Amino acid sequence: MISKQMQQEIAGSSAIRAMFLEGKELARQVGAGNVYDFSLGNPMTPVPEEFTGAILKAVQEEGSLELHGYMDNAGYPETRKAVADNLNQRFGTDFTGSHIVMTVGAAGALNVVLKTLLDPGDEVLVLAPYFGEYRGYVANHQGVLREVKPNIPSFQPDLEDLENKITEHTKALLINNPVNPTGVIYPEETIQKMAAILRKKQEEYGHEIYMVSDEPYRELAYDGRQVPFLTKYYENTFVTYSFSKSLSIPGERIGYIAVCPGMAGCKEALGGLSVANRILGFVNAPSLMQKAVALSVDARTDVAYYDRNRQLIYGRLTDLGFTCVKPQGAFYLFLKSPDPEEGNFVKAAKKHHILLVGGSAFSCPGYVRLAYCVSYEMIERSLPAFEKLAKEYQGQLT
Amino acid sequence: MISKQMQQEIAGSSAIRAMFLEGKELARQVGAGNVYDFSLGNPMTPVPEEFTGAILKAVQEEGSLELHGYMDNAGYPETRKAVADNLNQRFGTDFTGSHIVMTVGAAGALNVVLKTLLDPGDEVLVLAPYFGEYRGYVANHQGVLREVKPNIPSFQPDLEDLENKITEHTKALLINNPVNPTGVIYPEETIQKMAAILRKKQEEYGHEIYMVSDEPYRELAYDGRQVPFLTKYYENTFVTYSFSKSLSIPGERIGYIAVCPGMAGCKEALGGLSVANRILGFVNAPSLMQKAVALSVDARTDVAYYDRNRQLIYGRLTDLGFTCVKPQGAFYLFLKSPDPEEGNFVKAAKKHHILLVGGSAFSCPGYVRLAYCVSYEMIERSLPAFEKLAKEYQGQLT
Repeated sequence: MISKQMQQEIAGSSAIRAMFLEGKELARQVGAGNVYDFSLGNPMTPVPEEFTGAILKAVQEEGSLELHGYMDNAGYPETRKAVADNLNQRFGTDFTGSHIVMTVGAAGALNVVLKTLLDPGDEVLVLAPYFGEYRGYVANHQGVLREVKPNIPSFQPDLEDLENKITEHTKALLINNPVNPTGVIYPEETIQKMAAILRKKQEEYGHEIYMVSDEPYRELAYDGRQVPFLTKYYENTFVTYSFSKSLSIPGERIGYIAVCPGMAGCKEALGGLSVANRILGFVNAPSLMQKAVALSVDARTDVAYYDRNRQLIYGRLTDLGFTCVKPQGAFYLFLKSPDPEEGNFVKAAKKHHILLVGGSAFSCPGYVRLAYCVSYEMIERSLPAFEKLAKEYQGQLT
Repeated sequence: MISKQMQQEIAGSSAIRAMFLEGKELARQVGAGNVYDFSLGNPMTPVPEEFTGAILKAVQEEGSLELHGYMDNAGYPETRKAVADNLNQRFGTDFTGSHIVMTVGAAGALNVVLKTLLDPGDEVLVLAPYFGEYRGYVANHQGVLREVKPNIPSFQPDLEDLENKITEHTKALLINNPVNPTGVIYPEETIQKMAAILRKKQEEYGHEIYMVSDEPYRELAYDGRQVPFLTKYYENTFVTYSFSKSLSIPGERIGYIAVCPGMAGCKEALGGLSVANRILGFVNAPSLMQKAVALSVDARTDVAYYDRNRQLIYGRLTDLGFTCVKPQGAFYLFLKSPDPEEGNFVKAAKKHHILLVGGSAFSCPGYVRLAYCVSYEMIERSLPAFEKLAKEYQGQLT
């Protein structure tokens, strides 16, 4: 007799779980080395040595009550300052520690921001295709999620649709950059256009409309591309970040919210974020991890590793005739399904021991997501299977 | 333009914040050594060496991707098994690892349980006086909180009132044991009576009514008292726990939920808890901390330290004529305010540099909470101030 809401959530989430279990079963049958699992967005480059050193240093040098103790709900002052200084140095912003709230990952950060912003019925716009978890996050706070269509094949947002979808109830536009699942980066020009639309609509409706940026993949940008830092383009912006991908530490749940100093009611918003962190039951970001990221704020995992994977898999799949936008960031590739029913294609791939996720999970049917945060060797081993798959769809691969 | 809900929350929480800032200001004026701050429930006994050793061992011996990586939303199998085995050994229960869900502290655990159980409008009973955060936790999931009166002066629950407050909408009874703010322990007899009432009402209404137990203070029990383990008395029980107090690591946010194996729909409930952990943005309990508690599951902070404080402050305050129930657990003492307006008493105490929290924060006006998780020396230094305070209230202290 758990809640009706949760019964539905369990049904919805069981698809991914089922896929995971099928993959395990397949590995049992044919051997793990013969399964090509591209279904999980799980970082696999080594954790930087600076970060491991930072943990050891903190444990050995800090007093244990300070190291593992309560602090302000927004985080340790030195961690918040280290994050602010690092952002200012890289992006020419003007954060102080007071504009940073340390959080339980980006998932925690997004929930803290949404709890702070949303009254029941407030609308949150998302740019399709998008990370399916956003649905739950918005629903947690009784918000209403509305999808903005992409331009295909570029997978940049349809700005006309964005403008049309904004109503007097719109409270926020949620932007993931670089994008899971497409791997595209929204460039400066797109951000500026979105900012102009929001400003116009703020004026029209007489209240703030916030940009909420979800940036766990910020450091994973290729070919010298820059991911625009949103507070520079729009003042009513919350940037949420996670160290999960940049340090390969997704299990530790450590991230932050950066609040644009120029935001209307910035101080009140910051107060709200602290209270939301507490009320939602996060209380504060894990303390040892706060100390460790402060001591290793410049550490980065090996982005070149993912880039090498990207070149191999993108090159080979397009050679075989598959269609997809070339990934610019993150570690995903969004392939057009040669069967309009993407589920059939996912099944066909599985027969060749290739595990993919259907685009419907990201509100974009007709596509599949391939996560290339895997070993280079696994990609190499998978290529003959992709060849066979391409042959099966010969003539449908335009 | 943050949400109206959050504006109210900020107003409500600013009282505690104001007190904290006043305390800091007072310390600046008269010197930190001359302020007797009994307002915060912040553990201060040293972190056990076994736990620190466990962190170092995990960092030095585990592969970094396993140590800091994603795992099942419910936690690492070995951590869940270590917790289950430890509970079985101590309480004669029959948990397996599958009945344990690792969480971001007890605050996270409670939110995960409530998200799993509550549909909008479902009622949650709490036993007054109670930890004020429960209000926010229940509201997060659109539940309705109802208070059950205490018997005074024992501060055991008024069982008749409990029975009367159960309606067809009651989904759960939330029990904190030992109790913040009173320091009482609900003994086996009380638990059995509450279980009998819930069983009768389950029968009457034809649906489950759950016990949800919040036990961060479980290991802090004095005079050889036992805190009953609730799954032994009532099958539809979720026990939530935090290592914050037992290991003095409140900043790390590590705890768990133990689900009674005999619960109706146990498997579905466990599925719901995992999904809730994910959807709420916790995703999983911090990974290194999961490894560390698994390696030091028997470690305990120095409970005798708090007991020594308890004896000193309770003995002295009652000698001075103040009235309070003798604490049996936790590190709080709930003093009857000699002024019916407890706020006046809190102010009077502050003039003597003693910081207390009014009972209204715990839905029990006319009392004040004193947290004795402070240094023994501070208590000793504070005694002359309590003497002066008692003199001020001479004749009103019975």
